This record gives sequence, C-alpha cells and structure tokens, in this order.
Amino acid sequence: ENAKQLQTQKDELTKKLEETDVRNKELEEQLADLEQRLESSQVDQENLRKNLKTLLEILDGKIFELTELRDNLAKLIEDS
Amino acid sequence: ENAKQLQTQKDELTKKLEETDVRNKELEEQLADLEQRLESSQVDQENLRKNLKTLLEILDGKIFELTELRDNLAKLIEDS
Amino acid sequence: ENAKQLQTQKDELTKKLEETDVRNKELEEQLADLEQRLESSQVDQENLRKNLKTLLEILDGKIFELTELRDNLAKLIEDS
Amino acid sequence: ENAKQLQTQKDELTKKLEETDVRNKELEEQLADLEQRLESSQVDQENLRKNLKTLLEILDGKIFELTELRDNLAKLIEDS
Repeated sequence: ENAKQLQTQKDELTKKLEETDVRNKELEEQLADLEQRLESSQVDQENLRKNLKTLLEILDGKIFELTELRDNLAKLIEDS
Repeated sequence: ENAKQLQTQKDELTKKLEETDVRNKELEEQLADLEQRLESSQVDQENLRKNLKTLLEILDGKIFELTELRDNLAKLIEDS
Repeated sequence: ENAKQLQTQKDELTKKLEETDVRNKELEEQLADLEQRLESSQVDQENLRKNLKTLLEILDGKIFELTELRDNLAKLIEDS
Repeated sequence: ENAKQLQTQKDELTKKLEETDVRNKELEEQLADLEQRLESSQVDQENLRKNLKTLLEILDGKIFELTELRDNLAKLIEDS
C-alpha cells in the first residue's frame, strides 16, 4: 500500500523535475539571446559614439576654419 | 526493502527539484535584470537619437543661414 | 607805328587770355566731375564697409551658434 | 596819348594772363592729384573685391563641408 503511494509520488516528482528542467533550458536560451542582443546593442552604441566623435572633430575643424575666415574678413574691413 | 529504496529515491528527487527551482528562480531574476538593462539601453538610445535629430535640425538652420550670408556677400561683391 | 604794334600785341594777349580762360573753365569742370566721382566712390566704399561689418557680425553669431551646437554634441557623446 | 593807354591795357592783360596761367597750373596739379587718388582708390577697391571673392570661395567650401557633415550625421541617426 505504502509502496504504491511512494511510487505515485516518485512518478509525480520525476514529471515535475522534467518540466522544471525544460523551463530551465528555455530560460537559459532566453538569457543567452538577451545577452547577445545587449552585447550587440553595446557594440552598436560604441560604434555610434566613435562616429559621433569623428563628426565632432570635423565640426571643430570647420568652426576653426570659419573663425579664420571671419578674422580675414575683419582685417579686410579694417584695412578698407 | 522496496519501500525504503523508493523513499530514498523520492528524497533525492525532492532535493533535486528544490535545487532546480532555486536555479530557475535565479535565471528568472537574471532575465528580468537583463530585460530591464536592455530596455533602459533602448530608452537611452532613443533619447540620444531624438537629441541628435534636434542637433541635425539646428545644423540645417545654421547651414541655411550661412548660405544666406554667402549670398549677401556675393551680392555685395557683385555690386561693388 | 608804335601804336599799331601795341594794338597787335594787345589783340594777341586778349586772344590768349580768352583761350586760357576757356581752358581754365574746362579744368574746373573736370575737377568738379572728378571730385564728385571720388566722393561717390567714397560713399560706395563706406556703404560696402558698413554692409561687410553687418555680415561680419552675422558670421560671428553663426560661429557662436555652431560652437553651442558643438558643445551640445560633445555633451551627448559624453553622456552616451 | 593813345600809345600810353594801349601800353597800360597791354600791361594789365599781361598781368591777368600770368595770373590765369598760375591758376591754370594749380588746377592741373589738383586734377593730377585727384586722378591719382581716384586711381589708387579704384586699385584698393579692386583688391578688396578680389580678396572678398577669395573669402566667398572659402565660405562656399566651408558650407559644402558642413553639408557633408550634416549628411553623415543624418545617416548615423538613420542607422542607429
């Protein structure tokens, strides 16, 4: 009688463990997927950041050159 | 004899299930954390994108105004 | 005899004086014309100078605004 | 009697002619001076015009380069 009951409980536990293992595997897959997406997003962001820095340096150059042009115009007005 | 063996197996299964449940909970927490970080990263990226769009529009305005200035300078040279 | 000679000299002098007066009047007209052209040229130059000064001030404003834009871009990169 | 009168008129005419010649020379000098100033002013104006044209070309280049930078920024935003 007791043995039968124990067998039933053991079967239920085995089934539950299997389900939990399946869920576990799913979670690990989701986690790996998310980690990859986060990493990919960080790589993209780092690339954007690098490209923006390059643009910033070019913009600095353009502002410098416009300031030179401005100084030359001021000198022409001064001398005219 | 059989009942004792079953009891042992049942205990082992119970312990394993508990461990798996713990691991499961950990994975769910990691997943929730990562989801939050990814979402936060996407919000940041969206904000950056919006701010860059605003800068782009301002830059468009400045280029337009420099072009007007250029046209006025060309007219002054033409008329001088 | 002497009177005749004097009359001839007087006539020549009168003629020469008339010619010189005509030349004088021409020179005064040329002078007035040149003075007017020089003055007009100076007014033009002064106007050009004033208009160039206005352009210079506008250019100063544009460089200032581009520098603000540059600083905002630098801050966005810093914060990203 | 007549000869004396003629002599007096001749002397007056001679004096007047001398004065007019002096005035004539003065006017010619003023004219030469003004012509030189006008020419010098035109040379200055031509130089200013040439220098302004050079500035205009440089400004054209800067506007072109800012437009390239603007297009690159637009592309970065698009791709982000």
